[in-house]
Amino acid sequence: MLKVAIIGATGYTGREVAGILARHPYARPHYLTSESFAGQRLDQVYPQFRSVLELPLEKPEMKKVADCDFIFCALPHGHAMAMVPELLATGKKVVDLSGDFRLKDGALYPRWYGYEHRHPGLLAQSIYGVPEMNRAAIREAALVANPGCYPTSILLALRPLLLEGVVETRDIIVDAKSGVSGAGRAPQLPFHFPECAENFKAYKVAGHQHTPEIEQELSALSGAQLTITFTPHLVPMIRGIFSTSYLRLKGSLDEGTLWEVYHKHYGGEQFIRLLQPPEVPETKFVIGSNYCDIAFRLDKRTGRLIVLSAIDNLIKGAAGQAVQNMNIMLGLPEECGLK
Amino acid sequence: MLKVAIIGATGYTGREVAGILARHPYARPHYLTSESFAGQRLDQVYPQFRSVLELPLEKPEMKKVADCDFIFCALPHGHAMAMVPELLATGKKVVDLSGDFRLKDGALYPRWYGYEHRHPGLLAQSIYGVPEMNRAAIREAALVANPGCYPTSILLALRPLLLEGVVETRDIIVDAKSGVSGAGRAPQLPFHFPECAENFKAYKVAGHQHTPEIEQELSALSGAQLTITFTPHLVPMIRGIFSTSYLRLKGSLDEGTLWEVYHKHYGGEQFIRLLQPPEVPETKFVIGSNYCDIAFRLDKRTGRLIVLSAIDNLIKGAAGQAVQNMNIMLGLPEECGLK
Amino acid sequence: MLKVAIIGATGYTGREVAGILARHPYARPHYLTSESFAGQRLDQVYPQFRSVLELPLEKPEMKKVADCDFIFCALPHGHAMAMVPELLATGKKVVDLSGDFRLKDGALYPRWYGYEHRHPGLLAQSIYGVPEMNRAAIREAALVANPGCYPTSILLALRPLLLEGVVETRDIIVDAKSGVSGAGRAPQLPFHFPECAENFKAYKVAGHQHTPEIEQELSALSGAQLTITFTPHLVPMIRGIFSTSYLRLKGSLDEGTLWEVYHKHYGGEQFIRLLQPPEVPETKFVIGSNYCDIAFRLDKRTGRLIVLSAIDNLIKGAAGQAVQNMNIMLGLPEECGLK
Amino acid sequence: MLKVAIIGATGYTGREVAGILARHPYARPHYLTSESFAGQRLDQVYPQFRSVLELPLEKPEMKKVADCDFIFCALPHGHAMAMVPELLATGKKVVDLSGDFRLKDGALYPRWYGYEHRHPGLLAQSIYGVPEMNRAAIREAALVANPGCYPTSILLALRPLLLEGVVETRDIIVDAKSGVSGAGRAPQLPFHFPECAENFKAYKVAGHQHTPEIEQELSALSGAQLTITFTPHLVPMIRGIFSTSYLRLKGSLDEGTLWEVYHKHYGGEQFIRLLQPPEVPETKFVIGSNYCDIAFRLDKRTGRLIVLSAIDNLIKGAAGQAVQNMNIMLGLPEECGLK
Repeated sequence: MLKVAIIGATGYTGREVAGILARHPYARPHYLTSESFAGQRLDQVYPQFRSVLELPLEKPEMKKVADCDFIFCALPHGHAMAMVPELLATGKKVVDLSGDFRLKDGALYPRWYGYEHRHPGLLAQSIYGVPEMNRAAIREAALVANPGCYPTSILLALRPLLLEGVVETRDIIVDAKSGVSGAGRAPQLPFHFPECAENFKAYKVAGHQHTPEIEQELSALSGAQLTITFTPHLVPMIRGIFSTSYLRLKGSLDEGTLWEVYHKHYGGEQFIRLLQPPEVPETKFVIGSNYCDIAFRLDKRTGRLIVLSAIDNLIKGAAGQAVQNMNIMLGLPEECGLK
Repeated sequence: MLKVAIIGATGYTGREVAGILARHPYARPHYLTSESFAGQRLDQVYPQFRSVLELPLEKPEMKKVADCDFIFCALPHGHAMAMVPELLATGKKVVDLSGDFRLKDGALYPRWYGYEHRHPGLLAQSIYGVPEMNRAAIREAALVANPGCYPTSILLALRPLLLEGVVETRDIIVDAKSGVSGAGRAPQLPFHFPECAENFKAYKVAGHQHTPEIEQELSALSGAQLTITFTPHLVPMIRGIFSTSYLRLKGSLDEGTLWEVYHKHYGGEQFIRLLQPPEVPETKFVIGSNYCDIAFRLDKRTGRLIVLSAIDNLIKGAAGQAVQNMNIMLGLPEECGLK
Repeated sequence: MLKVAIIGATGYTGREVAGILARHPYARPHYLTSESFAGQRLDQVYPQFRSVLELPLEKPEMKKVADCDFIFCALPHGHAMAMVPELLATGKKVVDLSGDFRLKDGALYPRWYGYEHRHPGLLAQSIYGVPEMNRAAIREAALVANPGCYPTSILLALRPLLLEGVVETRDIIVDAKSGVSGAGRAPQLPFHFPECAENFKAYKVAGHQHTPEIEQELSALSGAQLTITFTPHLVPMIRGIFSTSYLRLKGSLDEGTLWEVYHKHYGGEQFIRLLQPPEVPETKFVIGSNYCDIAFRLDKRTGRLIVLSAIDNLIKGAAGQAVQNMNIMLGLPEECGLK
Repeated sequence: MLKVAIIGATGYTGREVAGILARHPYARPHYLTSESFAGQRLDQVYPQFRSVLELPLEKPEMKKVADCDFIFCALPHGHAMAMVPELLATGKKVVDLSGDFRLKDGALYPRWYGYEHRHPGLLAQSIYGVPEMNRAAIREAALVANPGCYPTSILLALRPLLLEGVVETRDIIVDAKSGVSGAGRAPQLPFHFPECAENFKAYKVAGHQHTPEIEQELSALSGAQLTITFTPHLVPMIRGIFSTSYLRLKGSLDEGTLWEVYHKHYGGEQFIRLLQPPEVPETKFVIGSNYCDIAFRLDKRTGRLIVLSAIDNLIKGAAGQAVQNMNIMLGLPEECGLK
């Protein structure tokens, strides 16, 4: 069995990586670190792991990290930036789940994340880890930047349309909705149960830090520099992301042709499910799985194309995709631990 | 005290009308009808009314309706159509809460509602009841068609922009989200707790029956025939509607000018609250009230205007607005029973 | 209008007192204090109060408190203890919503609350404020200790049985369930949405600080020193308390006799509703109201009496009862602002 | 791979059996029947099974059932009674998940289930399927009656205490709480989202059909005929059961001794987890697993023992335990498909 290190194992994404690896046929969690809970065991922080995964939590030591075969960094953004160079220095491959290595242009960090990037030189070598988009590069990468949850749901939904050039690129609107676990485990007033249960709101309107990441990747797909209008919302549920994207077709394509576009790109993808009318994605159908469900409707009255996609924000939007990337980086079957 | 009849008092909107009238200074629920619960009392169907409003429920008799001073019809659409002419024949003023008298063009009913309109002649004389848009006509009306919940949240949000002609009319997208009570009280699988809790989905994409109603009124405001892209979603919460509208400005207006546009039209409106950044509407702030909260953001990067609005779907989106209409039709202060 | 001070207006109970007083016919919130939000307005902390109650929040000054006609202290326990003597020194009547003045025996504080009482002399003069139990004493009181939410639901449910001496006093078990707002507004991990949504648990088993308060009052009712087994649980909902009490009858009473016992004591009480089979209390029927709904079942197979009661923890369990006490203390009709 | 039939595969328990078997190393769902959805596929009824388990649903035919190696009957009670004899006639072993074969005394059915038992002769030969209680008999059984969800959580919690005779048998109270999926998938008003979200209530107080089943098994464990007081409650969450049991110790045992009692009986059980203070069970820790988490507190002030237990009502409370029984009946390792 391959030994895996999880740096920051007690956040929600770290916990999910640990849980997935506990079922993995070739790899297992071996070294778990936590700043806040060092000295305890994972099953004390998350009692669902009692009798399942009773590993100690330690302050990170590079010597012990180096003893592992693969590394996940699940620190919050800002913190990952400082740690990843050390992790790479062990010579082991790394998947970083934060936003710190996703943007190619380091100058975007102050504006969207509020801090200067301390290792902009690493940005060029990190690979953006959506396997369905970047499989070959991921295979060779030493550092994979695991995508954000919103971007995953949006990029997978729009990729075939942009690759085939069938939609206008200057007119994309994405209205996205996330469960509360997307905000992480640190208690804050907006995520206090009596504040967010029975409530719905938009947040960070026209200013969410996932925006440049989505634009970077959509631009690469379309071959043109594009901007999007992106509005995230908070849904009173624990898990799940649902994205509704509005696009304008370049020509007058019919639904059959659009289906062909999607099938061409996703026919062989085992974690993408295309839903035909009358079905629409629902977050509950993907919870606990690494699937991204996608459907579209052509509104003939207005000429708009509406693309709907759903993922589990903690699985395909974080830990599941991270393990999918690990599998590729280690030459394992891509679905190991994920079905 | 004015005596009020509620036809169909045991659906959620009928219940809310009864509850609001129980606190009204000049009117009170007097005659409640129910097909399903005739013979019981309202407080047996809704025990929150014990000791508060213990009125009998009866099969509707026009003689008893005629004994009242005002009539609310809270039957489901399709059923209201058959009843409203009889109600009007009593000579009393009527607010109908269904969709049956909202569309001016009777030919739209088969397409959007699935049935022929049986009294298309009444459509011309019914007044679309958003008081902030139509106060004068409502005052004179014998029949007010109380607006849909989605349309209320959207029309109030976009009205100043269209009246002032500052946005493109052929490019409006509305992504709307509703709590489950919007689906009514009849148990159905999609609204069964284990099916819709912890879940988020779109439904009736590009096909919701509120679409023509929104288009009719937006067209009237703008003076041009327009179509919109409208996508409703189901949120795992009981009450509340949140609408996110995406518009393109005609010229390069700044936020200050847009604020002036809103203040010009809503400065004197007691049920509209305009929120300045960094505040955004949240459904919990309007639950239980007749307020519509509105905010906007100008996304300078993309040139889009994003308008956010929230209402309680059962109050400003139904029963509260219905009572507001009644107050106007009876010459009472508009806010009676609603503050 | 009487001018009312609310010390600690931005916690959930302070907010509810403010909201109830905003609808009160003879009193209104006049002076609101907050340590954390001084300098802001109430409607900035709770935007539902926009256009409704836009009062400034200030650091408490006794001179301004003294300018009011009545005082609510809604500080957390431990903090109220230090403030209440100062408030009383203004000569105005005070309702304290914390636990700091509920226990007659100051020696119980270290064990159940974790601190020494700093003003044990005040305990003798404070009146335990369940109006249905203590109306006459409340009328004369300078200081009323507003009861805990759990105790209110339990004392009202059991009081007639103990007063009439029909149940064994050494064998009382109460299994109680509360919504999350009972834990207050300060964000903490157990009340973080992803932790407590879709979850149910017991907490503080055999150790909750409301236990001695319940025992003190039940003992007074029964004339005998009794202890109870009390288990609180956390329900994934915002508001509401539901208590299930298990008692053993002294003799072989039938249900009719028990009904008489309840009617004898509650026949004239306007905030108690007795429900007959097949009805049972549900928290949703009391949310937003000052009612306590009570029902019982006699399990003939086991001889147990099961008493069910429900309240809104923030209304009858806190702010509503506090205003009810204020009304009594000021000689106003008891239901002012509460119907 | 062993071929398994699931009769009634589209209810929640049938769906869970299918899902567990899809991950089973030695068995797989082979023949699925449904009265309501015959002609569709499982993944059309439950889209989470797309690409995972796309089996057709058929009206049951005994010839096809007989072609399988094992049979689960997941029909509602009342319906199972008629079908099970036919299933047994195939000569294959059967686990029935309804209540129809759990009670040894057929005369109890009219009182608790509302109908006469049509095959009382089968009751003697059916084995009550809690593996931790009945492993040897299950191994030899042709028909296992899979226990109810509430009984499973209660019997596992109390079994060691009764076997060791350390608690009084005439004084047991169980206050139990269930998520809404326990009510099944048929839409009904009490389980309509707007009715049961944000709500808590008791139901079937002193009359729930699981009562005689619990009493039958507790009596067998204790060697004395006992009755219990059992109160079920409905929690606004999808899954999970939490039971709080109140017992009186026979002598003055300390907590250490009680721990020994539990460890003696559960030390070797892989699906029972004993939690030491300060930990208490929470339903979220067992959701999705076959674990039963158990803790207890000795309330020294009152002498009561409080036992807390939690399970996933659809896994250890239904489908997981059913597969655990199948594994035993087929001579497979007990945990296959369940870890």
